[in-house]
Formats: sequence, C-alpha cells, structure tokens
Amino acid sequence: MAFPCLDALETRSAKLEAKSLSSGPEPTYTVGATEVFHCVDPLLLDWGGVLPEFDIAYETWGQMNADKSNVILLHTGLSASSHAHSTESNPQPGWWEKFIGPGGCLDTDKYFVICTNVIGGCFGSTGPSSIDPADGQKYATRFPILTMEDMVRAQFKLLDHLGVEKLYASVGSSMGGMQSLAAGVLFPSKVGRIISISGCARSHPYSIAMRHTQRQVLMMDPNWNRGFYYGKVPPHAGMKLAREIATVTYRSGPEWEQRFGRRRADPTKPPALCPDFLIETYLDHAGEKFCLTYDPNSLLYVSKAMDLFDLGRINQEVAAQRRAERLELLQSGSQTGVNNASCSLTLPESPYAEQTDSEPPIDESVMSLPADSRPPEDLIAGLTPLRDIPTLVMGVASDILFPAWQQREVANALRLAGNRNVGHVELSEEQSMFGHDTFLLDLKNVGGNVKNFLG
Amino acid sequence: MAFPCLDALETRSAKLEAKSLSSGPEPTYTVGATEVFHCVDPLLLDWGGVLPEFDIAYETWGQMNADKSNVILLHTGLSASSHAHSTESNPQPGWWEKFIGPGGCLDTDKYFVICTNVIGGCFGSTGPSSIDPADGQKYATRFPILTMEDMVRAQFKLLDHLGVEKLYASVGSSMGGMQSLAAGVLFPSKVGRIISISGCARSHPYSIAMRHTQRQVLMMDPNWNRGFYYGKVPPHAGMKLAREIATVTYRSGPEWEQRFGRRRADPTKPPALCPDFLIETYLDHAGEKFCLTYDPNSLLYVSKAMDLFDLGRINQEVAAQRRAERLELLQSGSQTGVNNASCSLTLPESPYAEQTDSEPPIDESVMSLPADSRPPEDLIAGLTPLRDIPTLVMGVASDILFPAWQQREVANALRLAGNRNVGHVELSEEQSMFGHDTFLLDLKNVGGNVKNFLG
Repeated sequence: MAFPCLDALETRSAKLEAKSLSSGPEPTYTVGATEVFHCVDPLLLDWGGVLPEFDIAYETWGQMNADKSNVILLHTGLSASSHAHSTESNPQPGWWEKFIGPGGCLDTDKYFVICTNVIGGCFGSTGPSSIDPADGQKYATRFPILTMEDMVRAQFKLLDHLGVEKLYASVGSSMGGMQSLAAGVLFPSKVGRIISISGCARSHPYSIAMRHTQRQVLMMDPNWNRGFYYGKVPPHAGMKLAREIATVTYRSGPEWEQRFGRRRADPTKPPALCPDFLIETYLDHAGEKFCLTYDPNSLLYVSKAMDLFDLGRINQEVAAQRRAERLELLQSGSQTGVNNASCSLTLPESPYAEQTDSEPPIDESVMSLPADSRPPEDLIAGLTPLRDIPTLVMGVASDILFPAWQQREVANALRLAGNRNVGHVELSEEQSMFGHDTFLLDLKNVGGNVKNFLG
Repeated sequence: MAFPCLDALETRSAKLEAKSLSSGPEPTYTVGATEVFHCVDPLLLDWGGVLPEFDIAYETWGQMNADKSNVILLHTGLSASSHAHSTESNPQPGWWEKFIGPGGCLDTDKYFVICTNVIGGCFGSTGPSSIDPADGQKYATRFPILTMEDMVRAQFKLLDHLGVEKLYASVGSSMGGMQSLAAGVLFPSKVGRIISISGCARSHPYSIAMRHTQRQVLMMDPNWNRGFYYGKVPPHAGMKLAREIATVTYRSGPEWEQRFGRRRADPTKPPALCPDFLIETYLDHAGEKFCLTYDPNSLLYVSKAMDLFDLGRINQEVAAQRRAERLELLQSGSQTGVNNASCSLTLPESPYAEQTDSEPPIDESVMSLPADSRPPEDLIAGLTPLRDIPTLVMGVASDILFPAWQQREVANALRLAGNRNVGHVELSEEQSMFGHDTFLLDLKNVGGNVKNFLG
C-alpha cells in the first residue's frame, strides 16, 4: 500500500536535513523589511518572567499628524506579521491589503496606521527564536510564558518611543480582537476608540481544546525536540498538521458544504487513507503552505497566551498582585525566582471522572451560558475601565472558534459596565458563511462597519 | 523546562518495548467473551476487495421467539464492541447498559437484541489485526477498503445464519445510525422498522475534516510504521491524540462551559504547555484511557468508511456497477485486480487555490445548505427503498459532529420519498447539552423515544 502523504513528509525531512548540513540553520521566518524598535528597558511579564530587552518589528502607513492624534494601532491574528499592507520596502500584499489605504476602511489619508509583530512571534519581534542576551543562545522553550497583556504592554512601549500619547483607535480581529480590548483595559486614558472583530474577552473551553490539540500534535513530532530544533530539521510534520486542525476552526460548515461537499480529489482512484476528499486536499495544502513559514515555538507560546486570556476582574487582580510581588523582588536586586517558571504541571492523581446520566454541576459564577443571558459580574467589573471608550464589537454567526455569543457577551458586559457608546454587529450566515476567517475576506461587511465606526 | 506529558509518552513506549521483547506481541484488543460466527463464504466489498472468509463477533440479550420475528439488530458507534450490555459470560457493564434489559428501552422481555462488532473492528470480528488466510500474516494495511454497506452485508450474513428472515427493527446511533439506515436501503424487505439516532445519510465535510486530522496524527506517529506495528510498540501517542481530537467532536460547548469553564487543573502552578486547563486534562485522560484499547488500523479503516458513507442514489448506482464488474471477474476465475486497491492517490498538481472576496461556487446538486431547505433529489431518490419502513430519526441540537440539520435532512428526504411513517425528534440544548455523546448518556430523552417508537 502506498502512502504518498507520508512519502512527502519524509522527502521534506531529508531535504531539510541535507540543507541544514550544507548551509546552516533553517531559514529565518522574517519575511520582508520592517522597522524595528529596540527597547533597552526590561519588560516584566504577567507570569513573572522578564525580557531584559526586546525588539518590536512594525510597519506603518499614512502620515502621523502634528499632534500625533491620528494614530491607529492595528493588532494581528495569531500567525500574522506586521505586514498588514504593502509598503515601499516590501511591495508584497499584506494580510489586510484591501482594508488599508487612501480612502479605505483604515483610511491612510486620515490616519497613521501602525501594525506590530507581537512579542512571542517570529517576524522580527522578540520571541522563542530570538537570542537570549544572557547566554547568546536562542531562547527556545526557555522563553517565559506570555499573556495578551504582555504583548500589548510591549506595543505601548513602542507608542511611547514614537511619542504617541493617545491612540485614535485600537483595532484588531481574532487574537487582535482580544488585544484591542486589552489595550483599553490596561491603558484606558491612552485609547480613543476600540474595534474588536471576531474576538472575545476570555477564551472558552472549546477554543482551548482545539489549540491544545494543535500544541500536542506539534510537541509529539520528534523533530520538535522539546523546543530545541534550531539549526536542525524543524518539526514540519507537526506544524503541518497543527495548521490543518487550526484551519478546521478558521472556516465553517456552510462554506465547506457549498465549496467542497463530498467531492473527491480524483474520483477515478480508489479511496485513500492519505488525502482523498477535496476537503482533505484543501487542509493538506493549507498545512503545506504554513509548515515552514512560522516558528513552531512561537505557535506554542502565542496560542498558550490566547488560552490564558481573561479580562475578568479577578484574573486582573491576581495578575496585578503577582506583578507587584515580582517587581519588588526585582527592585530589591534579587534575581531569585525570575524566569524560573517551569512547565512542570502534572496531572491530578485521580483523573477526571465521567458523570453519566446526571446534571453537570452548574457554576455560573465562573462561566455564563452561551445564551444571551447576563454576563458574569466578574467580566462586567473587569471591563469597567472601558466605560468611557466608544467600542465597536463585531461577530460572525458562522464562526465556530470565536462564536457569536462571545461578542454578544462583550457588548452586553460593556453596556452593563456603563458604556453608552457600544456598537454591536453580528453578520448572519446569509451575510458571511466564511466563519472565523471572515475578517480577512469580507471587505464589504467587515470593512464597511470599521469605516463607519471610525467616522 | 519540564514536559511531563512527553515524559509519560516516552515511559509508556519504553514499557511497551520491554513488554513486547519479554512476552511477545501487544495485548489483543478483544475484551470479554462473545459469540463468534465464522462465515466461510467470501465477502465481496464495495471497493473491490474480497474477504475470503470472516468472523463476526456478536452478543445477544433476550429470547428469540418461535417465528424469529422479534429480533432487533443494534448497530454500534465507531469504537464500540458488541458488548452493549452485560452478559452471563461477561458481566462488565456494556456501552448501552441502562438502555437494554427487561422492561427497558430495548425490552429484553419482548425482543431478542443482537449487537455485532463491525468488520474492520478489533473486538472479535475480522479486521486489519486479523490473520490474512492467504499468508498467515496479519492484514495490517493490506486490509481492503471498507464501506458502511460492507459492514451491514456482513451482519446480514449472521442473520441468515441465525435464520432471521426479517428484523423487527434496525437500531443505531452515530455510525450505527448510518448503518441502521443502510440496512434498510440494502435489504428493505428484511427490515421492519428503523431507528437512526445522531446519524446521517451522508458524511459532511466538517466531519470528514475532523476524522482526517485524527487519521493523519495517527499515521504521523513513527510507531504506526505504515500499519505494520503488530508485535512491536503500537502508535499509542498518535492514538491518544487522535482520541483527544475525536473527544472534542463528541462533546459540546455548552456542557464544557458549565463543567470546565476556564478552570485550571492546579491554579497554584504556573501555566504549562502540557495539559494545564481542566479541559486539557479531561482530553488527556480521554486519550489515555483509549490509546491501548483499540487497534489503530481499525480506527483508520472504520473512520474512512464513515467518510465514504453516502446513501445518495448516484453513489449506490456506481457502487452496484463496480460490484457487478468485480463479481464477473471473480466468477470468471480471474484473480486479477482483486485486493489490489492501493492507497495511491496523489495530490492534484495544482493545489486548491483560495478565492478571496468572491462568492464560492454554488453546487446545490451535490450538497444542500444546512438549512431546512429541500434535500437534494439524489438523496431523496437514494432513500426511496425506505418508503414503506416506519422510521424514527433523532438528533441533538448541541451535536457538532452529526449536526441536527443532518437528521432533519434524513427525515425530510424520507418524507419526500413517500414515507408516511417518519418520526423526527430533535433534542434542544435545554434538553441535552452533551452534544454527539447524548446517545450514550440520555436515558430519559433518547431511551424514552426509542421505547415509544418500538411500541
């Protein structure tokens, strides 16, 4: 029996092996020229780690006005670079190419748009594939655990550097939709408006579960080598499959029904265990395109940061307390306990016991039902810093990763927190059947609402 | 950095390695005593393969009456054995323990209930882990491609053997819900009633995509060894993760929100890349429980058979034609072309090209929208053999793997095919938040409707 999909993986391993022997390490992931801000101040992270210095790669479009009041900070999804739009030094189309430009949704005749690569990423900002200044080696899995808020704090260091005191708007989709909210919570006086598209205020268990399976498949690839693959064959097979799983969550049923249905790639051939149905070859191709273009360790750290995202007040308070303790430790000159956060969690001794045929325990203080019921008080309290910031929350009914109830929850919580300027738009299945990825594709509905709101 | 989840996998590999050296091959997957029907007639399969002889493992409950008119054939889900209920020779509780028994939903005071292990499985029926009589070696991936209909034909060979001319009812959930319909389509005169719970008449792309990722993660485990792992360390890591992905599709968002929410397994520990949130430890545990109890090759073949399931008329006609050609070949004494179906499908040379910002091509002749629109004519025609068989179709609103629109589609297609005795029950999210697995858990709603329908 032939398995061409496995043959292809083995061929690529062999090619990469030969390449790493002949020409040194794997390609750098950075594509195209960016600006780089090198921050020499240490960055204290929410879970206790410290980056003694760091880089932020960024790109800009439009002109900053004299009083620096027209700046839009655009936040990216998980795997995107700062290249949201083509630039003079990098004419390749960006991931929001059609949304940015003169007269566009993000109108560069009016606004100065900044997009950064997040810390933890691999497109020029400091991340696991960067050199640890402490020893001149790449961080790999010695890199500290990150949060969304850490990424946003680093972005605001860049804004400080550029002399921007207040953003005209904080805008983002998907993970960027988390960050656009987090920016307002962390720096309410520095954010003029917020647009959060297909994002949320806290990750829900299905999304954690799907990212968990992506991390696990990557970590199980022997080439991952517990994170120390730099200069060797990277875990391309694990990355490919992780991207295939992710792609399932990025798109949606209705689109796939229409586009792929049950069609096989080649109906004249007998069925195969390797990709066979058109939907399988589509996923295979999505994985192929991605597997060598993004740093596997970045995927682990950034996806974990998404899991940890929770703008509830308790989580904010606990993080603030942890930061205060760390800061005291650092200021006392003690290095003990810094950067020693280990992934040493072990499974509980008695594993989770299935409870059949009985009502599950209801704990509404922790999570609300995904209905239009009142958001939990903890979340309303946590979003109170946004009460005076006009906010547009957008969702897509066909999104399975950031389902529409999450954006309704954000909008409701903001209103209950006293915000009288909350817009909420939900695109129906008739308007978009593209699921989560709608924000990349739907210039008319997503772009149109963005433009309207920015005014 | 510590990775206890990877340590655990390595420890298990080492243990299994030591065991296979000291005591021979891996444990057999069969658990508990069953009846076995050994069929000496060859079984021609839909995709051209032939099983020269085969076993069907089965268990029964209740008493067959004198005219053999009280027989219920119960079809299983993908990974289940024939052990639906405890027996004298195997007192362990079965997977539908509470649904079967005197006075129960499947009332053993009235009915004689038969449950079989499907061919392709590993619980006593012939499958990839069985010996190929041609050479005395285990089939492994030399086993021929199967369909749901092949499994059902094998079951009816058992019924022939038992002298059962007509079933009182064909009953099944999930994959078994596919088979209960297929039984009626293949043998309309031999099926008195049909109950199809959380099943469908053809697999849809999201379900194919999710099974694809499970097969891929398994096939990428180096221990899978292209299917030839018998007597060696089985691909337990791949199996574990495949089950974790499957578990995501078996349960649902609402239940997880309430049961796990965002709770971490041990909030006193720093975040981990290994399982950390409670939902992750739950998935990890589900994978652990499963990874050595089911044959990996069985998972591949049976899950592929689910993908191939399509009761549309065109698919039935093409299969019938292929079977006729094979049969002629076999009867002419030629062995050429038998059992040579290879998984040799290669990817198309120009991969799928993403079409952004444009309407996807609509091909309603192939798939309908998951709305309550009219099912495709091909499906209505394909279900015409069931027009005179009373049928109960049940679905669960919180099911993401076999979504409720699929059962509505079956019920609508049956009615449009002229069946005047179609019951359709859809459990709302308020009735069940357990998603696809509801059929295993909800004695009241699922069991109650089964009992009512059987009368």
